[in-house]
Amino acid sequence: MPESTPTAEMLARRARLLGPAYRLFYEQPFQPVRGEGVWLYDAAGQPYLDAYNNVVCVGHAHPQVVEAIARQAATLNTHTRYLHDGILDYAERLLATMPPELGHATFTCTGSEANDLAMRIATAHTGGAGLIVTRFAYHGVTSAIACASPSLGQFVQLGAHVRLVDAPSGGDAGAGHRFAEGVRAAIADLRAHGIAPAALMVDTVFSSDGVFTGPAGLLREAVEAIHAAGGVFIADEVQPGFGRTGETFWGFQRHGVVPDIVTMGKPMGNGHPVAGLAVKPEVMQAFGKACRYFNTFGGNPVSMAAASAVLDVIEQQDLQRNALEVGTYLRERLAALAPRHALVGEVRGAGLFLGVELVTDRAARTPATAQAARVVNGLRARQVLLSATGEHANILKIRPPLVFTREHADLLVQRLDEVLTAIAQ
Amino acid sequence: MPESTPTAEMLARRARLLGPAYRLFYEQPFQPVRGEGVWLYDAAGQPYLDAYNNVVCVGHAHPQVVEAIARQAATLNTHTRYLHDGILDYAERLLATMPPELGHATFTCTGSEANDLAMRIATAHTGGAGLIVTRFAYHGVTSAIACASPSLGQFVQLGAHVRLVDAPSGGDAGAGHRFAEGVRAAIADLRAHGIAPAALMVDTVFSSDGVFTGPAGLLREAVEAIHAAGGVFIADEVQPGFGRTGETFWGFQRHGVVPDIVTMGKPMGNGHPVAGLAVKPEVMQAFGKACRYFNTFGGNPVSMAAASAVLDVIEQQDLQRNALEVGTYLRERLAALAPRHALVGEVRGAGLFLGVELVTDRAARTPATAQAARVVNGLRARQVLLSATGEHANILKIRPPLVFTREHADLLVQRLDEVLTAIAQ
Repeated sequence: MPESTPTAEMLARRARLLGPAYRLFYEQPFQPVRGEGVWLYDAAGQPYLDAYNNVVCVGHAHPQVVEAIARQAATLNTHTRYLHDGILDYAERLLATMPPELGHATFTCTGSEANDLAMRIATAHTGGAGLIVTRFAYHGVTSAIACASPSLGQFVQLGAHVRLVDAPSGGDAGAGHRFAEGVRAAIADLRAHGIAPAALMVDTVFSSDGVFTGPAGLLREAVEAIHAAGGVFIADEVQPGFGRTGETFWGFQRHGVVPDIVTMGKPMGNGHPVAGLAVKPEVMQAFGKACRYFNTFGGNPVSMAAASAVLDVIEQQDLQRNALEVGTYLRERLAALAPRHALVGEVRGAGLFLGVELVTDRAARTPATAQAARVVNGLRARQVLLSATGEHANILKIRPPLVFTREHADLLVQRLDEVLTAIAQ
Repeated sequence: MPESTPTAEMLARRARLLGPAYRLFYEQPFQPVRGEGVWLYDAAGQPYLDAYNNVVCVGHAHPQVVEAIARQAATLNTHTRYLHDGILDYAERLLATMPPELGHATFTCTGSEANDLAMRIATAHTGGAGLIVTRFAYHGVTSAIACASPSLGQFVQLGAHVRLVDAPSGGDAGAGHRFAEGVRAAIADLRAHGIAPAALMVDTVFSSDGVFTGPAGLLREAVEAIHAAGGVFIADEVQPGFGRTGETFWGFQRHGVVPDIVTMGKPMGNGHPVAGLAVKPEVMQAFGKACRYFNTFGGNPVSMAAASAVLDVIEQQDLQRNALEVGTYLRERLAALAPRHALVGEVRGAGLFLGVELVTDRAARTPATAQAARVVNGLRARQVLLSATGEHANILKIRPPLVFTREHADLLVQRLDEVLTAIAQ
């Protein structure tokens, strides 16, 4: 099949202008020029099935979101030191999707900023500094949050106030208890170092750790543990939020817990830079009274219009239900590959956030890291886009736009089947 | 004159939904519903002259920027792990406005993120941690940057690695030397505490300190001092950048220095959340090689389209020259108020970034803090928008969209004259 290949000149130009900190996906980098729904197109007009980009949750270039952005940008775009109905209307809608305890909304531009602010709020509320995250967590790129994101690699030093716990793998009834045991041990270790615990922060689908979504209730005991220690629970919903997990609108709701702070980002504006937090009023009190928070672009009228249009489309197209139905269908079809492909280990996830663990030995769960890279690049060559996650990068990460249908799922599974067959030969 | 007044219900709704960390401008909060050029309009259709909002540098709701955003959003919006010409074309244009030593561009969503990343880069490059900023600096709201932003108030503790120096006030030939003396003392104090200096970070118009722009060359000796100590010089161009200071495109250029890192934000996308850094390649090396930097929304195709349209308009309408000409005219007209108004002290600034110091005693330069608040609120009542800055909030901060004309300047001065007269009575 023909495809447009980026020239060596373009890669050299990129290295010259952007420098060494920027990385590209794929052995053969991908250069889309147009997007629509679940499809990205290269310059030659070839379509690529997007099974990766959760940011564009209602689909690439959704006309309703584009129109909302264009209309508001042509009318007014200011900031939160003036009054505007848009931020209040959106805050009200957003908070209505949450448990009633989460009464205040705050807006930033990125998930990194949201998590960074969550820690400032948690520190002010608790008087503590200790932060507990999972062993291969990713929460963002600000200085304060990068040092609590071990998935960024060894170069980024962990903060002296940061403790790591194993993510709750296994999917068995004991997973939540084991996770809570880890959290209690981390609390004890913080205290042994004279550090009061401020927060337990988790991505409620543990996406960078390898996608761990079950069983329901998984987080309950750990949340009780951090509360008992005087800390707050921060649910990082940047990955799972906005209906993706299907059963519930937010990932934490699947586990029957009420966070003290919820952070969100990526899909919130379908690609427009908007992110934010929902916070219990009593938790916001200490920070909000003594301090102020102003984010020049955060919560501006255009960002609120974009975010509001995204909620409109999710509701109008019933995309949470679609995530549940198509996600369940896709998970079953992926699991059905296992009998014919030894590489396929556990298939897990919730709604349209799925992980396919690739292993060289099912019993020992030996990570098939090199094979996973071949699968990801093989799928890219077959015009299907996804990625790999987890500490050993052996878990296929599947989180398409929420407008993904059964036909798209069938195509993905067919191409994956082909690639797994080719690799086995 | 009639005006729409926000109801108590709206303020109560805002407090309920957004909580106590959000603050509003003015005793009588302002609620614009539409913007165009230098004008904001309330619900009653009343026009307000905007002499404050530097973010909308090419004017409110500029059709060329709106169209660029809408067109790209309707086509494709992805991220920097795929190839896209937009980011390379913009990076090339942006770097062409800088001294050739600044070879790499990196994109974030906010100025806070840009300054936060600048410190991560500076730390990786120098191996040091010490950060020197001015006594009433504002550089952003991430944890790492808020702790180096004393203008946020006492609640936000300064970092143990942060040292404050007096901003270079006075405007005399010795101002740069005194500033450098402060920097050298801060370096010595960092070393005395076993902290190696990483960076001197300054807003090159010292806006939160009170607007200090002269004389030209002001920064040279201080930059030499931080370089001699092994640290880097970070020019925070979030306020002065993109032609505002008139004589040069960037604030640092007025002082004949070449920063190691330049950060930028606010006006870059005329309100669209885009920000970034320009970095010397050798300074980026340590961070870029060992680490990676990925910002989901940073440098995305829509942000680059918005930023590119802003550069187009600045060039096509020659707004840097306009900033110089109208800014010079406005400064002269403001200074001419002094003989009739005892409150008016020094009028200073560069291009369309001006400060009018209000004093109760000219010789002693006693800050007229309460009077400044009355002037700001009095102008708001007369449909002119500006604010006050500096440690004592006694310096009127004037930084309108760059499409400000002499007629707008005349109106601003006339209304200010009226308010000063009213206050004196």
